[in-house]
Amino acid sequence: MGKFVVGIDIGGTSARAALVDLESREIIQEHTTKSSDDGQKLVQILCSLVKDLERSSKTNVSSVGIGIAGLAHKSGIIRYSPNLPNLIEFPIGPELEAHLKIPVTVGNDATVATIAEWKMGAGRNSNNFVLATLGTGIGTGFVVDGHLLLGSNGFAGEAGHMIVDANGPIHITGQKGPWEYFASGNSINRIVQDEASRGDFPWAVEIAGTWEKVNSHLLSSGVKKQEPDSLRILNDFCRDVSIGLTNLILLLDLDTVVIGGGICEIGEPLRNRIEIWIDEMLIGSEHRPKVEVKIAELGPNAGAVGAALSTDND
Amino acid sequence: MGKFVVGIDIGGTSARAALVDLESREIIQEHTTKSSDDGQKLVQILCSLVKDLERSSKTNVSSVGIGIAGLAHKSGIIRYSPNLPNLIEFPIGPELEAHLKIPVTVGNDATVATIAEWKMGAGRNSNNFVLATLGTGIGTGFVVDGHLLLGSNGFAGEAGHMIVDANGPIHITGQKGPWEYFASGNSINRIVQDEASRGDFPWAVEIAGTWEKVNSHLLSSGVKKQEPDSLRILNDFCRDVSIGLTNLILLLDLDTVVIGGGICEIGEPLRNRIEIWIDEMLIGSEHRPKVEVKIAELGPNAGAVGAALSTDND
Repeated sequence: MGKFVVGIDIGGTSARAALVDLESREIIQEHTTKSSDDGQKLVQILCSLVKDLERSSKTNVSSVGIGIAGLAHKSGIIRYSPNLPNLIEFPIGPELEAHLKIPVTVGNDATVATIAEWKMGAGRNSNNFVLATLGTGIGTGFVVDGHLLLGSNGFAGEAGHMIVDANGPIHITGQKGPWEYFASGNSINRIVQDEASRGDFPWAVEIAGTWEKVNSHLLSSGVKKQEPDSLRILNDFCRDVSIGLTNLILLLDLDTVVIGGGICEIGEPLRNRIEIWIDEMLIGSEHRPKVEVKIAELGPNAGAVGAALSTDND
Repeated sequence: MGKFVVGIDIGGTSARAALVDLESREIIQEHTTKSSDDGQKLVQILCSLVKDLERSSKTNVSSVGIGIAGLAHKSGIIRYSPNLPNLIEFPIGPELEAHLKIPVTVGNDATVATIAEWKMGAGRNSNNFVLATLGTGIGTGFVVDGHLLLGSNGFAGEAGHMIVDANGPIHITGQKGPWEYFASGNSINRIVQDEASRGDFPWAVEIAGTWEKVNSHLLSSGVKKQEPDSLRILNDFCRDVSIGLTNLILLLDLDTVVIGGGICEIGEPLRNRIEIWIDEMLIGSEHRPKVEVKIAELGPNAGAVGAALSTDND
């Protein structure tokens, strides 16, 4: 019999849980429930979630891991949360531990997702890689020299806020030209609409009806059909994604880059263009082994599964 | 009696060696000699250097560490060297090991200097810090979670090439807007001369005679005298230094930043302005502990001493 743990990815609207056998790394059960931005209510919700999973799987859970967007301090206190602002300074880890009477670890959602891709996904053959999830912003986690990087407080991996265009446009964060302004999942929707509204993406406007309805899914189908504007927009986007990735490779000497997020529905054309751009932009690339670019394998499960695996200290 | 090791910082024109007692971390002797860009000649020079140090100190050296600018592969092969281009692909580590019959480790000069500041200098109280040396370019090394970051090949820490201004000026490396274009020791000389040639630094031109003779030492003395243009130029420079440092803090969650290089002659005004800019630019700084900024303590010795300490695998 294995050692059973529960990982919970806490989002703004829902909490997604996975019960994992740490020994076999098998996902035994999954369950999604409503989230809450009230600390005490959230603790009740998470306790019920764990108890329900124990009951329905007939197992005893030995520890719980939590992943949450923002600055999740390694002590278990939420220092900053973009999705659940009322949770700021709430000690979710210690509170849940007091209720469940088993160890609870707390980490950033992108950081714990990196553990999942490392142990069970696209990073499994690498000890030096980044998982970059292109979503609302860009979430990243790093494995370097076979260690998951946590940093002084557990906040390592905030690469979406990395300034790549110091005189560039102002992002909703107030920063000028951070990477995620150009290269997130949200930004690709802004980009295709900008192109469409300027008359530079007529194929998509014809299908969508109006430029306001053009979105990244349409880009994805345009790329599949080899539609020229779709290929051009994808290429420009991949260049901006690669500027940030190239910075990370220079800093951390990564051999593998794993891309996550909804935009991965584009698949091979996205992966391939990023690989080509990195090779072109990486200074000294002729003296370095080629960096591999891969698409993430665990999908939206990565956060919950990684949170479960984060309870393992080996 | 201690365990004696030799560290050698190989530059374009000279090789600087330090004999260190690994147990007491005492620097027993130092010696500087001419370098060479011929691989076999360099091996002869380094062998003599080690033998001379053994003889004059009456010790037996148990291992040798080398630090060299560029892409020093962890196998001991120089993949790229900006200062000694003829050394590219030369297996300096294995060759020296064959001659000396003791273990030889090879690393990047900025990376090994980081070990020195960590074990004996300004980083000694931190397990999450960067040493950023503002010289010809910017050399950096990282300690995260108590590990020196090496990366897949041993190339981690090439932060000088990090793009911070994707539409900015083209650097000698061919890149657009890398951090070192704005924030290296070389760039401060370019900046003060630009200011002087435009008539925006009259105090310095009066002292130097012509704008061509204005340099960073003059900036340093202007700052000491609280000369307004000197303070303004320093402030702008510190902002550009801090853009890159803030990126590194976001990525690696560092608690300490250590600044090295000749520009540190400015001292406290430099340190203080960088600390203020980081606090201003670091997104979420109100939710994070303050990042400490320190001036490097080991000076031009850091490379040789760090190379010596890099032989220690503990």
